[in-house]
Amino acid sequence: MPGNWSNQQFLTLLSDFGDRDVYVAVMKGVIAQINPKLSVVDLTHQIPPQNIAAARFSLMNAYPYFPEGTVHIAVVDPGVGSKRRAIAVEFAQGFLVGPDNGTFSGVLAQTPAIAVVELTNSRYWRTPEPSKTFHGRDIFAPVAAHLASGVTLQQLGHEIDPASLVQMNLKNCTETKTGWFGCIQYIDHFGNLVSNIPGNYVQNKRWCVQVSGLMIPGCDTYSNVKAGEVVALVGSHGWVEIAINSGDAHSQLQLNLQDPLEVISY
Amino acid sequence: MPGNWSNQQFLTLLSDFGDRDVYVAVMKGVIAQINPKLSVVDLTHQIPPQNIAAARFSLMNAYPYFPEGTVHIAVVDPGVGSKRRAIAVEFAQGFLVGPDNGTFSGVLAQTPAIAVVELTNSRYWRTPEPSKTFHGRDIFAPVAAHLASGVTLQQLGHEIDPASLVQMNLKNCTETKTGWFGCIQYIDHFGNLVSNIPGNYVQNKRWCVQVSGLMIPGCDTYSNVKAGEVVALVGSHGWVEIAINSGDAHSQLQLNLQDPLEVISY
Amino acid sequence: MPGNWSNQQFLTLLSDFGDRDVYVAVMKGVIAQINPKLSVVDLTHQIPPQNIAAARFSLMNAYPYFPEGTVHIAVVDPGVGSKRRAIAVEFAQGFLVGPDNGTFSGVLAQTPAIAVVELTNSRYWRTPEPSKTFHGRDIFAPVAAHLASGVTLQQLGHEIDPASLVQMNLKNCTETKTGWFGCIQYIDHFGNLVSNIPGNYVQNKRWCVQVSGLMIPGCDTYSNVKAGEVVALVGSHGWVEIAINSGDAHSQLQLNLQDPLEVISY
Repeated sequence: MPGNWSNQQFLTLLSDFGDRDVYVAVMKGVIAQINPKLSVVDLTHQIPPQNIAAARFSLMNAYPYFPEGTVHIAVVDPGVGSKRRAIAVEFAQGFLVGPDNGTFSGVLAQTPAIAVVELTNSRYWRTPEPSKTFHGRDIFAPVAAHLASGVTLQQLGHEIDPASLVQMNLKNCTETKTGWFGCIQYIDHFGNLVSNIPGNYVQNKRWCVQVSGLMIPGCDTYSNVKAGEVVALVGSHGWVEIAINSGDAHSQLQLNLQDPLEVISY
Repeated sequence: MPGNWSNQQFLTLLSDFGDRDVYVAVMKGVIAQINPKLSVVDLTHQIPPQNIAAARFSLMNAYPYFPEGTVHIAVVDPGVGSKRRAIAVEFAQGFLVGPDNGTFSGVLAQTPAIAVVELTNSRYWRTPEPSKTFHGRDIFAPVAAHLASGVTLQQLGHEIDPASLVQMNLKNCTETKTGWFGCIQYIDHFGNLVSNIPGNYVQNKRWCVQVSGLMIPGCDTYSNVKAGEVVALVGSHGWVEIAINSGDAHSQLQLNLQDPLEVISY
Repeated sequence: MPGNWSNQQFLTLLSDFGDRDVYVAVMKGVIAQINPKLSVVDLTHQIPPQNIAAARFSLMNAYPYFPEGTVHIAVVDPGVGSKRRAIAVEFAQGFLVGPDNGTFSGVLAQTPAIAVVELTNSRYWRTPEPSKTFHGRDIFAPVAAHLASGVTLQQLGHEIDPASLVQMNLKNCTETKTGWFGCIQYIDHFGNLVSNIPGNYVQNKRWCVQVSGLMIPGCDTYSNVKAGEVVALVGSHGWVEIAINSGDAHSQLQLNLQDPLEVISY
């Protein structure tokens, strides 16, 4: 239980709520009403509206840096009000709370679920009749605050099979004879194409990326190529990515989420 | 006194300071210098410059979710440096601190003031000679930090009549034979017109909105109407609002803050 | 040592990381892993990319308002991965941690360094092999967290001469027979030209600014002049600045960072 891991319990918040409205503050108020001693950290609330791939990618890049037992709340929830499940997941480093829509599939591909429950016990909601549009306030924030305060995962609802969770269906990154095979897992707001091949696989090697007929040389930094040229490099999130110096690789290369690519090292 | 309600005291901050400058951080530093144990939560700092209606609306949507005894600081202050009064208000759920310009009129219409003081005791300011432009730093943040640390409302200045506070002069929402009569209390950045009629008044009913000669059918979601069509629905803040799918209801319907409207349910 | 100054230790964060990515959250996670009891306050993360002058100016405007012993982390770091030094500075009011690139020169012109170390002791980094692109996560955040938890400055590396730190090379503000001589230290996103002459030097005086052949009258507020007119006033950060009402003084007056100006009072 979280209470045993640390004498200061952390929660993180991730959403597409932006910073103009008070939605995020309302979730923090709900948490404070349940347990005013919890520490809450914002991951980001600038996920593009309803962009589950971006939520999955951001959560996967942030969770390893938080204390053991941290409860991560992620509310990018295009299906709110529909039949999509609300879930809480226990994994080796803490807990995940949010809609079952693939947001957690990146974390769980790295660190498998220990147990998953569907959040059916309304005793731990803010109200037994939650709104149709704001489960962040009415279900996810209160459930996470209780979980961070000693309520067990099993008290929150009935256990479900981890294998039943919604996946993003990204191809795994796999080793080949000459390097690594993977796919595009995220497109950032510059149009850079971020693969699911970790940057440390190409550290201290000469390498290139092969994708849709192109052979793109691996570089250290953007400044190694001229404006308008295509470059492969390890981006600041730590993955192999494809960019165009001062350009938009997504639109210019016509590559999309889940498209395959290959790293060849020599 | 706050100290009796909870062993962890909360303050919230609302302003039009944005996120580029260090103004908000400076207020947090001033609070920490007075009492480093206080918890501070940002409501939003993206209120459009000097837009008191937006500040009033945001505060009204957030305050119910915070712990009892929370001190809410709201600094949208076009009159800073003029003769407008600086005030602190005690109400059932906590305290309000800021300029007397109507920002608090939404909260106080729901939960009346217990006592109000004008902040005339400079002993609780950061300096007896505050700047002409930044009372958030010099008066409101330090006064709120002292209030959250056990100083009584009455120590902060002289009591004034709650009835003398500046109002936004919005018509109250009132029941009619066929539904509810109200007005437009807020126009968001999409041009959606938010009324002061609570959404739960139309829950599980068939309803429409009558406004300036139009009869607008009440719907569950935007997707019930075509792009360009006018729709009435319960918005994510929980009020009846009028929107145009993929359009700007404010400019297209020529409706403004305080304009009357009527909900008819059947 | 910080631990002796207050029973609640503060850190601040300043960067050009923006709010879309999880970089800032990752630094907070790293800090929480080292000491979950620390309080972290964001100064701003909207510094224009790699703009050291803006970082220097923002830090200088914020640090005086924080509790004694606060550790300020500032990561605007165009030289990351190069030979630029990573440093920690002790000064009268606390500590500064970040790259040695001039960011701290504004604070240290007001309050000189007591001691400076180059951060060479990898025992206090997150990893002995830090990434080439994210020293905020791998060096500055962990070092600052240790410093705020009782590790001494001297344990973090070897002492270096404070006189060897990188300066912004701004002319100091100096008194003249008729007023003050200074220079432009910052240009904000409106194009306003902020000098390094403190606003209180002109308080309750009649004054004007002489710059590149112009004589600009000192005013209380923008509203004293017509749209398009040049005005000198004390800006909200507390410095004498030159603005054009509804215009862009930077581009219209062709004045730049470090250009000299003179305040004449009478």
